[in-house]
This record gives sequence, structure tokens and C-alpha cells, in this order.
Amino acid sequence: MSALDVYLERQRARIEAALAEYFPAEPAQHHRLVEAVRYSLLGGGKRIRPILLLAACEAVGGADDRALPYGCALEMIHVYSLIHDDLPAMDDDALRRGRPTNHVVFGEGLAILAGDALLTEAFHLLMVSAERDPDPCRAMQAVRETAAAAGAGGMVGGQAADLAAESQSLDLPAVEFIHVRKTGALILAAVRGGALIGGASPAALAHLTEYGECLGLAFQIADDILDAEAPTSVTGKVQGRDRALHKATFPAVIGLPAAKQRARELLDRGLAALSRFDDRAEPLRGIARLVVGRACAP
Amino acid sequence: MSALDVYLERQRARIEAALAEYFPAEPAQHHRLVEAVRYSLLGGGKRIRPILLLAACEAVGGADDRALPYGCALEMIHVYSLIHDDLPAMDDDALRRGRPTNHVVFGEGLAILAGDALLTEAFHLLMVSAERDPDPCRAMQAVRETAAAAGAGGMVGGQAADLAAESQSLDLPAVEFIHVRKTGALILAAVRGGALIGGASPAALAHLTEYGECLGLAFQIADDILDAEAPTSVTGKVQGRDRALHKATFPAVIGLPAAKQRARELLDRGLAALSRFDDRAEPLRGIARLVVGRACAP
Repeated sequence: MSALDVYLERQRARIEAALAEYFPAEPAQHHRLVEAVRYSLLGGGKRIRPILLLAACEAVGGADDRALPYGCALEMIHVYSLIHDDLPAMDDDALRRGRPTNHVVFGEGLAILAGDALLTEAFHLLMVSAERDPDPCRAMQAVRETAAAAGAGGMVGGQAADLAAESQSLDLPAVEFIHVRKTGALILAAVRGGALIGGASPAALAHLTEYGECLGLAFQIADDILDAEAPTSVTGKVQGRDRALHKATFPAVIGLPAAKQRARELLDRGLAALSRFDDRAEPLRGIARLVVGRACAP
Repeated sequence: MSALDVYLERQRARIEAALAEYFPAEPAQHHRLVEAVRYSLLGGGKRIRPILLLAACEAVGGADDRALPYGCALEMIHVYSLIHDDLPAMDDDALRRGRPTNHVVFGEGLAILAGDALLTEAFHLLMVSAERDPDPCRAMQAVRETAAAAGAGGMVGGQAADLAAESQSLDLPAVEFIHVRKTGALILAAVRGGALIGGASPAALAHLTEYGECLGLAFQIADDILDAEAPTSVTGKVQGRDRALHKATFPAVIGLPAAKQRARELLDRGLAALSRFDDRAEPLRGIARLVVGRACAP
């Protein structure tokens, strides 16, 4: 295992242990709701958003213990969006991370509520954490930015644009508009959130913002490439699902080679933004290389 | 018009003007999403939650201008819950406030996203307001309590229990469990939120909490009674819909006369909790009498 693999595995384990604590297996009440939440929240996943948040906090010299609940809240928001995106009225996906999707197991009604619960509890956790934060102003800013990234101008807006674009042919700016919002906004919120909680200087925050913007877009382009190229055994999703749905993807609009080229350029820009950071930014560098590398192996 | 009618109409107009500003009719992007949000958010309604929040702020001597955005956020959370509750996978309602429900007009996918957007933007608005609040600690507490009231231990938990209880016969504690969460939690959050923003003393906050708990339960019992007794022209909903769905309601479990008696007792307790407040609590008293009176007219 590489040093990065060890790092990612250690952070993933910390995050999963914390997530499991927020939704105990045997609550006194409304058992099925918590079961539905736990099914998706604790059902695997790379935990890339919370890991990014912790790594950004670390990169600016912050204590990542304090950042852990913020990262968990971001993961809760991400998982809520997956549950809702998979619904029959949206992408109608039956498989996610190699398992039946939430609504297949628990029914559509409970799946909608499980998503609603995750989104709401994420903000509850953010508030509990912000109230305790030694720098509540910075913490409140991080929470506000998270809400903006997840809302109508961010993730939900991107998903709505994606829904509207199905079966339409889009140009590059339109695809980028969707990707920046649907995936990029929350990744950027993770990086900026970690930087804010870690007490980043204005200059460091600006550099990390540049890194987060590049990574957010590269992440979605890489996902598009994998959807087009990799079999279900690798992605845990039905292969070519995006193409079947006529989804707006980079490979569909500019072709696979150009999409890979674009992802590599974004990686270079992202790494350049970190050039003044010391070794504590090594996980951020490694994650960017990993994200792009898994889709654009030479 | 009574003094209360004038008050309610004035507050309703303020709240609707503010709500319309948060979601302008001609945004640059994702037009259909904003249209779907506006359709439900600006499509009428008594605005009882934001009015309660403003009235509670006023009752403790606070400036209700500051409380307005918190009230609007609560209304956004309420409207999101209506959009999701009306979905085919939940209550499958085609009519709300005398108009076709959101998913009937915009489709299920966009209706789910409109609800998601409202919930998320509510927290964004709460954070923007809390950051500017002269007492950020109190403001953060209000936001945290709102999240708790809307989450798995509150509104979403109540809706999940309601969903699970359909076609089952419930006893009184089970119905009360559902009602306290599904409706009561957000009403209580409105009253406590207004009190916190208004700078309530601990004693005033305790009395208003008692008032809010009584009103929250009375509100849902009154709604059950109206659903059973009033025609669609009055409620804007299909008459007897709860009964048709075998919904857990007070009249179904303890009968109409006992349900009315219970609502009247809760009104008395709620008013008693306000006994030490001066005239500035008159709107809170009037709202409680109105809520119970419309269902339990002698």
C-alpha cells in the first residue's frame, strides 16, 4: 500500500465510525427511517468529500479532529443527493455501489424521507459543531457556503439542469454548467470548509479555492470517462448508464481523448495552486492525482 | 375585520413579499426549478409558522424586522414538506390549497428537487441571518433547533411514522407521537425561534415553549377535525382524504367530540402559559383561539 492508500484508509475508517455514531442502529423510535438512512450512509463509498475537508484543514495547519463533524455533514448531504438522484422520477437507478438502491429496498416514500432526513440532520450537525467552534464566525461561514453549494445555485440547480437536459444535445458550456454545480460545488465546499475550519489565511484560502474548483470539475469528468469505459464490476453502477439516459457528459460532447486531456489540464492547474504548500498538502495532491489517474491512466 | 384579522393580513403580506424576493421570477439560470419552487412557495397559505415566529419575537419585546428572514426560512421548510408529502409515493395528493399539487404541474422529478431546494435554501437564509445577528449565539441556537425540529427526531420522523402507520389501527399515544413530530415540532420551533431572536428571558422562553407545545398539538388536532368535517371548498384539500388513506388522526382514534375537547383543553393550557405576558402577546393568544376555534366552533 502506498502512503496515500494508508492515509485514505485511515481517514475513511474515522469518518465511517463517526457517521455510524450519528445514526445508531437501535434508536428508540422510527426504526425503518433510520434503517433506510444507515443503508445508504454506511453502505460503502470512497468518502472523498469528507476526506478532502480533513485534508484541506490539515494543509493549512488546522487540527482535523475539529473538522471531522463538518466532513461527516458533507457526506450526509452527498448521500442524500445520491438517494434522491437514484429515484425512478430522476435517474431511475437500481444499482449503486454494487447494491440495490435505497428505494428498491425501502420503497420510494421512505427513500425520499431518508434523503430529507440526511439533508436536515447534516445541518443540525453543522450547527452543533459551529456552536462549539472556537471561531464561530469562520464556522458559520463554512456552514453558509455548504448550504449555498448544496442549494438551487449549486447541487440541486445542477441536478435540475441535468434532468431538463436529458435527451437534448448540449454544447460544452452547458455540460460544464451542469457539472460545476452538480458535483463541483460540493467538492469545492469541502475544500473551502476544511480551510475555513483550519484557520486558513486569505492567500491560502484563495489557493485552495482554485484547487477545489479544478478538482471538482476534474472529478466529474473522470466519472463520465469511467461510466463510458469501465465495467460495472469497477464502478458498481450499470455500465454506459449515462449514455443510455442521454446524460450530459464530457465524453459525449467533446469525445473521450479531449475529455481526458481536459481532466489532465485541470489536474495540473490544481497541483499548481498547491505549489506554495508544504508536505501537509501531500494528501490533497495525492487525491487529485488519484481522481484523474483512475480515469486517465496513460 | 377584527384587529387580529388586520394583524394576520399585514404579517402575511410582509412575509409573502420577502419570500418572493428570495426566489425572483426571472433568475438567470435553471428557470424551471425556480418556477416549481415559486409555484408552491407563493401559492397561498396561511403563513402561520412565520407569523407565529414574528409574534413570539414581538411578545418578548424584540424587533420583528430581524425575525422576518427566520420566519421565511421556516415557511420554506414547511412548503418543502408539503411538496414531498403530496408526492405519489407518499400521500399521493393531487390538490393542495385548491390548486394542483407541485408534481402534477412540474412532474415528480422536479417536485422532489423543488422540495430539496427549499429545504437547503432555508438553511442558507438562516445562516445569512445568523451571521448578521447582533446575538449570533442565540441565532445559532435558533437555527440548530429548527434543524432538529425538521429532522429525523421531528418532522421527517413524524412523516415516516405516519407513512408506516397507514392502514394500521393506532392507539392514542401513537397518534400523538406522530402529530407532535409531524406538525408540532416545527410550530414549536417557530415560537421558540421568535423568542430566541427577540431576546427572551429564560422564564419567558419556558412559558412560550409551553404555549408552542400546546399550540402545535392543537393545530394538528384541529386540522384532523377539519379534514373530517369541512368540505373541499373550505380546506382546499380533498375531503375525508385522511380517512380514505386510513391516516392516523385524533377523531379516528378517540372520536370527534373527544378530539374537540382535547383541542379546547390545549387552548386553555396554551393561553394560561401566556398569562404573565402583556398586550404584545395578544397576537399569540388570538392565533391560538383562531386555530382551535375554526375546528371547534361551539
